[in-house]
Amino acid sequence: MSRFWSLKTHSLTPYVPGEQPKEGVYIKLNTNENPYPPSPKAVEKIRNMDFTSLRLYPDPDGELLKKAVSDYYNISDKEVFVGNGSDEVLALVFKAFFDEKATIAFPDITYSFYPVYCNLFEIPFLQIPLREDLSIDLNDYPTDVKGIIFANPNAPTGLYIEPRKIEEFLKLRSDTLVIVDEAYVDFGGKSCVDLVSRYDNLLVVQTFSKSRSLAGLRIGVAVGNSALIEGIKRVKDSFNSYPVDKIAQLAGAAAIQDKEYFETVRNKIIETREKTKNIFREMGLIVTDSKANFLFVKIPGIPGPRAMEKLRQQGILVRNFNTGRISDYLRITIGTDEEMAKVVESIKVIMAE
Amino acid sequence: MSRFWSLKTHSLTPYVPGEQPKEGVYIKLNTNENPYPPSPKAVEKIRNMDFTSLRLYPDPDGELLKKAVSDYYNISDKEVFVGNGSDEVLALVFKAFFDEKATIAFPDITYSFYPVYCNLFEIPFLQIPLREDLSIDLNDYPTDVKGIIFANPNAPTGLYIEPRKIEEFLKLRSDTLVIVDEAYVDFGGKSCVDLVSRYDNLLVVQTFSKSRSLAGLRIGVAVGNSALIEGIKRVKDSFNSYPVDKIAQLAGAAAIQDKEYFETVRNKIIETREKTKNIFREMGLIVTDSKANFLFVKIPGIPGPRAMEKLRQQGILVRNFNTGRISDYLRITIGTDEEMAKVVESIKVIMAE
Repeated sequence: MSRFWSLKTHSLTPYVPGEQPKEGVYIKLNTNENPYPPSPKAVEKIRNMDFTSLRLYPDPDGELLKKAVSDYYNISDKEVFVGNGSDEVLALVFKAFFDEKATIAFPDITYSFYPVYCNLFEIPFLQIPLREDLSIDLNDYPTDVKGIIFANPNAPTGLYIEPRKIEEFLKLRSDTLVIVDEAYVDFGGKSCVDLVSRYDNLLVVQTFSKSRSLAGLRIGVAVGNSALIEGIKRVKDSFNSYPVDKIAQLAGAAAIQDKEYFETVRNKIIETREKTKNIFREMGLIVTDSKANFLFVKIPGIPGPRAMEKLRQQGILVRNFNTGRISDYLRITIGTDEEMAKVVESIKVIMAE
Repeated sequence: MSRFWSLKTHSLTPYVPGEQPKEGVYIKLNTNENPYPPSPKAVEKIRNMDFTSLRLYPDPDGELLKKAVSDYYNISDKEVFVGNGSDEVLALVFKAFFDEKATIAFPDITYSFYPVYCNLFEIPFLQIPLREDLSIDLNDYPTDVKGIIFANPNAPTGLYIEPRKIEEFLKLRSDTLVIVDEAYVDFGGKSCVDLVSRYDNLLVVQTFSKSRSLAGLRIGVAVGNSALIEGIKRVKDSFNSYPVDKIAQLAGAAAIQDKEYFETVRNKIIETREKTKNIFREMGLIVTDSKANFLFVKIPGIPGPRAMEKLRQQGILVRNFNTGRISDYLRITIGTDEEMAKVVESIKVIMAE
């Protein structure tokens, strides 16, 4: 602690990301990374780039990448914002649209970075309890908030809301800004991006860290009506002119253009998830119906933190959120079939003890 | 404009970086980039990296890069923070140490991003006029501010304060946080990094965008007492867990380790600067005694904006800050000898008109 910290700095409770172990001895299923490498076309772009160009600043607005995203979704590039990972995009979004007088609501169980942004920027927030079955019911959200944010599929539950239900809500609450965090949408969900042109109260946030296998390059995206995008850009340009570096812009654009590889990878992950889910259920585990690249599971009779620790002893990293009614759940990222077979074996060992 | 913008978003006046032209037809001397490519060792690191590892998140604190920086300066890695360019580092620093009740002072003519951060984070600021000769006199700074920031060498003047003078000031104002932005220090100045272990009121900020030729990769550094660094990290971890991507960490570490290449490049730039400065003075231009990788010059009888436009017509981009007493100056980045010869010729043409 330094006498120069501001009061706010003292009061921060920073977000704690999953562990990035220094040695590669673990089967790493704790941060929802993709078990498969990025698109070979993205890698080729990096290998063959003009490295002398690194002496120059990148395009401040990531035009190349924005163009690739807008082509992919068949929207205008004025409806796209790109940033340094979706965490940065979300931070800029919280700052652009909320302040001490504008409340935001989100589920009590969701991405745990949301309350951290609120604390940093002094934004009042309401946490709306999930239903008994861990689902989000949008009807539970009060009308007197400026905005709502939730992950869809939600994390760490994996549960998903159909876009037509979200569309109904957008109509019903046309004065509420609805932010849909689609970090996991490519694993069996359908994006709300198509609704953006019709609803100026919808903002969709995505990431290249999961389905595009580019967590290491930090690429996040927001899609919304051009006036919303312009607001995020104003904050970005008051914070950091060039958040997305040259290599990330190049590789990100190539990754989103490589639809074939993307389909292959996400389908493999979906297949492995469904197979593993069925095995888990046969073993007697409680497993939500996840549409994400992870499973959210409870091993009967074994407290979550202990289960996590026991898996760690067997060389497998998973995540446990030791809080409230999800404290006995594990969030297990979908790895390769081989990795998931080891997880199954390890859980059998734990259950037999 | 969207009805969802916060009041703050409405009131922002974002920083405007120098133009990044889409086509490479210009001699680009407007954003203080390095005319030489990055270290071949940094490029080799990228070429030979394990690209499959991009599927994984980077180390959240940039340990590899932090270690390389702390080895270079022979300090502890607890005294180092790395971020997504020095613009992001500065933004986090403003947020970590200042707020609506803690005023910061800086020169009236300096890096124009400082007042932008203040506006974003509601930090009151004082702008202290440079002396008549455009120099900073630290004695002009009032005692009733929480902190002071200035670029050293200053931008866009290029003028430099010796570390021993800064050290005197640190002693005299031991309750004032002094932030020295050393973006340009490698071009003939001496860093204040050596003072960090003795003064807990000193924070030094640097960038890899200028002397390391890595503007395209976005790497910024803060060096200070570990408690100051911890404060910046708290804000970073409330904003974005992984701001420095894997490739930037790898290449940045290799770049700072390649001392020989660094010395060669910076010496070439210093030599070109001194040569060009002498020619400019012989031509009758007013030229400050810059210790940076740019020259700050006034062409007698020709208003700054017009001079900038005329150079542009001849294919040369430079920067003019059309404000107050520096409105007739041009900031001209030091390019290669060949590029500077063309600048000299073009200015001769303009003066002869």
